[in-house]
Amino acid sequence: MKQYKYQLDENQMPTQWYNILADMKSPPPPYRHPATLEIMTPDDLAPVFPAALIEQEVSSERWIDIPEEVQDVLRMWRPAPLYRAHRWEKALDTPAKIYYKWEGVSPAGSHKPNTAIAQAYYAKQEGLEGFATETGAGQWGSALSLANQLFGLKTKVFMVAISYQQKPYRRIMMETWGGEVVPSPSSETHAGRAILEQDPDSPGSLGIAISEALEYAMTHDGYKYSLGSVVNFVLMHQTVIGLEAIKQMEMAGDYPDIVIGCAGGGSNAAGLIYPFMKDRLTGEKPDLRAIFVESTACPSMTRGAYAYDWGDTAKTGPVAKMHTVGHAFIPAPVHAGGLRYHGIAPTISALLESEDGEARAYHQLEVFEAAETFTNSEGIIVAPETLHAVRAAYDEALRCKETGESQVILFNASGHGHFDLSAYDAYRRESLRDYRLEEERLAEALSSLPQIKE
Amino acid sequence: MKQYKYQLDENQMPTQWYNILADMKSPPPPYRHPATLEIMTPDDLAPVFPAALIEQEVSSERWIDIPEEVQDVLRMWRPAPLYRAHRWEKALDTPAKIYYKWEGVSPAGSHKPNTAIAQAYYAKQEGLEGFATETGAGQWGSALSLANQLFGLKTKVFMVAISYQQKPYRRIMMETWGGEVVPSPSSETHAGRAILEQDPDSPGSLGIAISEALEYAMTHDGYKYSLGSVVNFVLMHQTVIGLEAIKQMEMAGDYPDIVIGCAGGGSNAAGLIYPFMKDRLTGEKPDLRAIFVESTACPSMTRGAYAYDWGDTAKTGPVAKMHTVGHAFIPAPVHAGGLRYHGIAPTISALLESEDGEARAYHQLEVFEAAETFTNSEGIIVAPETLHAVRAAYDEALRCKETGESQVILFNASGHGHFDLSAYDAYRRESLRDYRLEEERLAEALSSLPQIKE
Repeated sequence: MKQYKYQLDENQMPTQWYNILADMKSPPPPYRHPATLEIMTPDDLAPVFPAALIEQEVSSERWIDIPEEVQDVLRMWRPAPLYRAHRWEKALDTPAKIYYKWEGVSPAGSHKPNTAIAQAYYAKQEGLEGFATETGAGQWGSALSLANQLFGLKTKVFMVAISYQQKPYRRIMMETWGGEVVPSPSSETHAGRAILEQDPDSPGSLGIAISEALEYAMTHDGYKYSLGSVVNFVLMHQTVIGLEAIKQMEMAGDYPDIVIGCAGGGSNAAGLIYPFMKDRLTGEKPDLRAIFVESTACPSMTRGAYAYDWGDTAKTGPVAKMHTVGHAFIPAPVHAGGLRYHGIAPTISALLESEDGEARAYHQLEVFEAAETFTNSEGIIVAPETLHAVRAAYDEALRCKETGESQVILFNASGHGHFDLSAYDAYRRESLRDYRLEEERLAEALSSLPQIKE
Repeated sequence: MKQYKYQLDENQMPTQWYNILADMKSPPPPYRHPATLEIMTPDDLAPVFPAALIEQEVSSERWIDIPEEVQDVLRMWRPAPLYRAHRWEKALDTPAKIYYKWEGVSPAGSHKPNTAIAQAYYAKQEGLEGFATETGAGQWGSALSLANQLFGLKTKVFMVAISYQQKPYRRIMMETWGGEVVPSPSSETHAGRAILEQDPDSPGSLGIAISEALEYAMTHDGYKYSLGSVVNFVLMHQTVIGLEAIKQMEMAGDYPDIVIGCAGGGSNAAGLIYPFMKDRLTGEKPDLRAIFVESTACPSMTRGAYAYDWGDTAKTGPVAKMHTVGHAFIPAPVHAGGLRYHGIAPTISALLESEDGEARAYHQLEVFEAAETFTNSEGIIVAPETLHAVRAAYDEALRCKETGESQVILFNASGHGHFDLSAYDAYRRESLRDYRLEEERLAEALSSLPQIKE
C-alpha cells in the first residue's frame, strides 16, 4: 500500500530553531544604517524591532529555544504534513521520487504564520500594544493579524492600494482576525500624504507601504514594526519546516538529493532548506543540491548585483549586502506577488556566493505549464509563488527521466492558491503573458545602489 | 502539554462504510416514481445512477467494503484531523470539552469529495465517459470535478447562473480540475431553453439546474447523473468521517455526549453522526444526543411536513418521504447556500421521527455571532454552513457553563470559508440580515406536496 502523507505527532514538533549563521563559513556582513551607511548596531534597530528579535538577528548560537507559548500556538496546525507525490511521479513517468512539504494547512494558508506567531509572542512579552506592517496581496498581513489576534495585540496593516481594491478577500481575512487595514498610500502618515499630494490616485507599491508602516510604528507608542521575510530571525523561525521534514523523510526512508524552495525574500525556501543545508555545510552531505527559485520578472539572484542595497524603496530600512535588482526597481505585475521583492535574504546571497546553493528563474507561463500536471495529479491548488518551486521539481524530475536516475527531490509547497484562482483562469484562457526584463532597465535600476567601501 | 489535534495514520483509515439502514428500527419507506408516484424499483433508477450505487442505495448490509482504489485516493488527504478546541473552551469559559472534525483539508475544501471519489470510481468501473451534475455555489461541482479528473472522467456542471456570474472562484476551481461548467438555465437542454424563452435573463435555481443535469445525463451516451447529498449511498460514503472520529475520540480518551452537524441535504451531518448513532440504536449509548442543524431560511426539519415530496423543483427526480418545506419553495438568499435545500435525507427524517435525533434551526446573524468567538480562538475560518454547527456547539457549551456539566461536544467542521469571506465582511459591516419565513408562505409551499396514500 502506497503511503502519501508522513505525519508527525504534536510532541515531535521541533523545540528549537536552527540558526544557519552558526555553520556558515562566510556569513553576511553586518547591516548598514539607511542614512549614514555606517555599520549598524543592535541599538540602532531597537526602535524598530522587539529586543528579543534583534538579539536573535545577531546571534550565532546554532540552536535557539522556541518558547513553549509559541510551540503551543504552532501546534494548532503543526507539524505540517509531508507528501510523497506518487501520482505526479507517475504522470511525469519519472524514476525520481518527489516529496513536498505542505504549508497550506495553516489557518492563513501559508508558511507565514510560523514567524508571525513568534514575533507576536515576543512583542507581547515586551509589553507592546501592537505591530504595524505592510502587505502586498495580503499573505503576510493575514498571517500577522492571525498571530496578533491570538496574543491579544493590535495589527495595523498598510496594504498596497491596488491590491486593497482588487483583492478584497485577503483584506476581509485580515479584518476577520482583527487587523486594521488601510490602503497605502494613506493619509495617516507623512510618507503617504506626500505621495497622495502628488498623485491622489496612486496605486501604491510595497516600497511606499513599508515606509508608511515604519513611520507608523515609530510615531505610535506601543507599536513596533514587523517584517515577514529577508532578515535572519524570520528565516530562522521558518526552520521548523525543514526540521519537521528531516524527521518525515526519515519516516519515508529517504534523504533528498535536491531541496527546492521559491524565493521572494527567501523565508519559505530557507525554512525548508537550511536544516538540510546544515548537513552540507558540516560536510555530512556535501553533494546536497539546494535550489532557490525566483521569477524572471524580478531576477535578483540570477541577474542582480551582489551588493549593499536598501531593503525598501524609500530608503528608510537597513542596508544589507544581498543579491538585488535595485531598491528602485518596480517589477512587472506577475501573479506571484510574493516574488516581486527587489532583494533576497542576505544569508541566501552568501550561500549562493559560496556555491552552496543554486539560483534559478522562471517565466510565469512555464510555471503554470507545470502547475497543470501537478494539480491534475495531486489535486492541491497551490499559490503562484509556490508554482515556481513546482516547476523546478518538474524540471529535475524530467532530467532524471532522461538520465534514468532515481533521485530524491523535496520541495516546499509554501501555500494554497485559493485567492489566486484568477491566475489559473488566465492561464487556461491563454491570457497570461510573460514579461521580458530588458538589460537597459535592469542596468538603470542597478545604478541606484549606494556606494559603500568595504 | 495540551494536545490540539488527533491524527490517524493512513493505514488506520476505515476500510468499510457504515450503512445505518441495518440498524434502524423504522427505515424510510421506498422512493416513488416522479410521474406515476408508484413505488420505484432499482431498475427505474438504472438510467440515472451507476448500478453499483443503486445496489448500495437499497442495501441493508451493515458494512460495505470501500474499494481499494477509492481508499487510495481518499488517503491523499484522509484521515482528516480531529481537533480539541482548547482555546475556544477557554474563551467561552465552559466546563464542556469541545472537539471538531476538520473536513476542510480536502483539496476541494469540504467533505464533498468523500462521496465524489466513490461515485467517480464506480462510474469508471461501469465504463461511463462522464457525470453530469448541478451545483449552486460550487462546492459539490468542484468536488466532483476533482474526483472525475483523478479517474479520467468528464464532468458536466450546470451551475446556477447567478452564482456563475457572482462567484467566479468556484467556477475556476471546477475548470482547473477539468470540469465543463455552464450557467443554468442553458441553451443545451430542453429544460433550460424553455426557461430562457420565458426569461432570457433568468438567474436560475438549483431546481432548474437539477433538471438540466438529469436531462443531459439521460440524453448523452456514456453519461449518468451524480448527486452530492440526500440519498442513502451518499450519506454512507460520508461515514468515513464518523468512523475516523470514533478512533480519534478514543485517542483523546473521550466519548461524545452530543454530536452535531449542519444539514442541508444532510450528508456531512450523517457522515459524522451515523457511526455514533449506531451505538445509540444498538443500545450501547442510549443517551447520546445527535443534533442536526438547519437554517431558519429553509426549515425543513423544524417547520416542514414529514411527507412524500419530489427531490427537485422540476419533479423529474424520485419522490421521497422526508421532512420538507415543499419542492416549490425558494429560500431566502442566505450565505449558507448549502442549507437551502427544501428537503432532508430520508434516513435523517426517520431518525427525527423515532426521536433518535434532534433538529434545530438558526438565523444567520446568530451563527455569525458564534463565528466571531470561534474564529478568534481557533483561527480557522469555516464555511457559513459549518457555522450552523458551530453555533449549536456554542449554545451547548454555554448551557454546560450554566449547569456546570463537563459534557463532551463533537461537531463536524465540514468545510473552509475561503470563498465565503464576503459573508464575514457583511457581518462585520452590519449589513448581514436575517430572513423571517412567514407562516403563509410556508403553508403555500407545503400545499404543493403530492397526494400519496400509504
